[in-house]
Amino acid sequence: MNSTVRTQVAIVGAGPAGLILSHLLAAAGIDSVVIDQRSRDEIEQTIRAGILEQSTIDLLASIPGSRAHTVGLRHDGIELRFDGAGHRIDFPGLAGRSVWLFPQHEALRDLLAARIGAGQDIRFGVTATAVEDASGARPRVVAVDDAGAGLEIEADFVVGADGSHSVVRRAISGSHDGYFREYPFAWFGILCEAPPSADELIYSNSPDGFALISQRSPTVQRMYFQCDPTDDAQAPSDAEIWDTLQKRVPGTTLNEGSIFQRDVLRFRSFVARTLRQGRLAIVGDAAHTVPPTGAKGMNLAVADVVLLARALEALLLRSDEGPLDGWAEAALDRIWKAQHFSWWMTSMLHVAPDATDFDRHRQLGELRSVVESEAGRTYLAEAYTGWPFG
Amino acid sequence: MNSTVRTQVAIVGAGPAGLILSHLLAAAGIDSVVIDQRSRDEIEQTIRAGILEQSTIDLLASIPGSRAHTVGLRHDGIELRFDGAGHRIDFPGLAGRSVWLFPQHEALRDLLAARIGAGQDIRFGVTATAVEDASGARPRVVAVDDAGAGLEIEADFVVGADGSHSVVRRAISGSHDGYFREYPFAWFGILCEAPPSADELIYSNSPDGFALISQRSPTVQRMYFQCDPTDDAQAPSDAEIWDTLQKRVPGTTLNEGSIFQRDVLRFRSFVARTLRQGRLAIVGDAAHTVPPTGAKGMNLAVADVVLLARALEALLLRSDEGPLDGWAEAALDRIWKAQHFSWWMTSMLHVAPDATDFDRHRQLGELRSVVESEAGRTYLAEAYTGWPFG
Repeated sequence: MNSTVRTQVAIVGAGPAGLILSHLLAAAGIDSVVIDQRSRDEIEQTIRAGILEQSTIDLLASIPGSRAHTVGLRHDGIELRFDGAGHRIDFPGLAGRSVWLFPQHEALRDLLAARIGAGQDIRFGVTATAVEDASGARPRVVAVDDAGAGLEIEADFVVGADGSHSVVRRAISGSHDGYFREYPFAWFGILCEAPPSADELIYSNSPDGFALISQRSPTVQRMYFQCDPTDDAQAPSDAEIWDTLQKRVPGTTLNEGSIFQRDVLRFRSFVARTLRQGRLAIVGDAAHTVPPTGAKGMNLAVADVVLLARALEALLLRSDEGPLDGWAEAALDRIWKAQHFSWWMTSMLHVAPDATDFDRHRQLGELRSVVESEAGRTYLAEAYTGWPFG
Repeated sequence: MNSTVRTQVAIVGAGPAGLILSHLLAAAGIDSVVIDQRSRDEIEQTIRAGILEQSTIDLLASIPGSRAHTVGLRHDGIELRFDGAGHRIDFPGLAGRSVWLFPQHEALRDLLAARIGAGQDIRFGVTATAVEDASGARPRVVAVDDAGAGLEIEADFVVGADGSHSVVRRAISGSHDGYFREYPFAWFGILCEAPPSADELIYSNSPDGFALISQRSPTVQRMYFQCDPTDDAQAPSDAEIWDTLQKRVPGTTLNEGSIFQRDVLRFRSFVARTLRQGRLAIVGDAAHTVPPTGAKGMNLAVADVVLLARALEALLLRSDEGPLDGWAEAALDRIWKAQHFSWWMTSMLHVAPDATDFDRHRQLGELRSVVESEAGRTYLAEAYTGWPFG
């Protein structure tokens, strides 16, 4: 049995971008319907990086019932380690703001509870298959639920927050058209049961390659080391993993513990060529992918929808198309700065497989230039803690 | 007829590094002999870049008879131009110091006049062919003059300020051993008779490639545009050159004038693996080469000899080998920061032949990140105007 629903904004995807957008629209008095092909449980178990910029955490914390400031941990700095020494980047001292460690699944639990509590129309297990009348004034999302029943959502505007295989992106660009970059390395990531080895994140550039010492909670650590993209996450023994990690963070004794998850994360940069066409737009992972080194993924997604919510308010409440016409350019301005920052942190800290001795010495010269200069540290801290939404 | 001369420091090369070193040593009461294979006239006609850091110009200005502050022109900023707009980097406002435009041949005229006036033993037309007893306490420079007569200089210390084909480097490392990087582009440079097109230098990143609008004097401009390393300097017509330059600096009408010199400058980075061994050291172009984008060449050479003069004072006046033992590391610290800066300015401003659309957008994201942030502008200004000698 097929059904049709009418709303002001159809949002495909109930990840952070889609849910926050529905919250911002509701706060402005704009109705939306959110669909996601996953179940609520699946969404709440999506484990992703959890470094949130000050602006992102402030927005999350403003949503009723948020645990952003209670479960989240404020981090006032990171350490860059190279050539045998650690160098702290003091975020509040340099940039006047901090970042927060708040795992994405915790943020999603809060967001889902808040939106469902507020009566938001969210439909789980509903997969978008196409957008029809994509160039018209009332585009329609065509979808199907897990039982095979069809659903059409007719809306004034359709937003694709539907991840890297976005159906809405396909409707906009006619293809998966965009700007790509592949990196010749990946991250070997583990989760382990042990308290943090350091209070703050350590970004370590060692001759053998990069390592990141991070944490998920007071009892679980998240750690990564640079590996080959073709490496098998199941191949090394636990002892080999600890050996690799320890060797790449000389000067710190890592807390070891039972490794209960391993994965190999490929590095890719992507920006869609067209973010908006008529009454369709894409945000978050549907619009861009960044390598994880800059911790920008979810933050960019949130910035996309903060700007888009304002543009949709102007369009739908005041029939003013101006902000929407400027939205893609404003979003891309930030996206390309974030792409640059992610590329910069990646290339400054990793050892490329084809790096020459010259490249290696230049890299250490760069790291020294940054940490020895207050301006250099500030430039990094500003980008890491995030540019204000503007 | 062969002759032998004894001195405290034998300096091979009468370029800026060798002459400034002889000045600093003389000021400390240390004798030196300087040889150069070129004639005085040839040296004074060596046309090279003339952007001098504040510390470099202050040192030159302290030498009797210097015209550094009268012929030299203070530049309080540069402009970065991209995406249709110019962005000024205000050096005094950001870094508390400026740079000076003082062509190298003018600096050399001053230095030669000052050193010869002070009774310095400088021998022109004398070519070093080898260093003997290189590992001993009294190494000897073996040379031959233009008439074929041999000359040996026996010294407590030998300094190679003898350029990229350094004989002293060969004696130190047994080969031309070092760290290299080649770039896939070059600069097409012209000198033309016309007043400056802009008060300050313009570094322009255009979709067609980089251009630099510079000046040599109130009546002569020095301009460059990115070209292929295999391009023939004589191939394009004057009209084609102006067309290329003008197209790469949109928004400014360039002052055209008779082009009286054209050249293609290859881009190369080099750092020698060993700067000092026993009582031999290399400085300036003998020790390193940088691409011209960062304007660091002569400044690095001067920093090398300022640090080396202090180390030689300790060695020769107080028999303290400590500063000399730390010299190479201190010099290399600065050299690699300068190599990084030169690589950074080069890669941020040029369009690599194999650049993808992603690379191009990322580059513009980087340029925006730098100019929109006071910290970013300061980081660039600090490096451009030069780190203090320390």
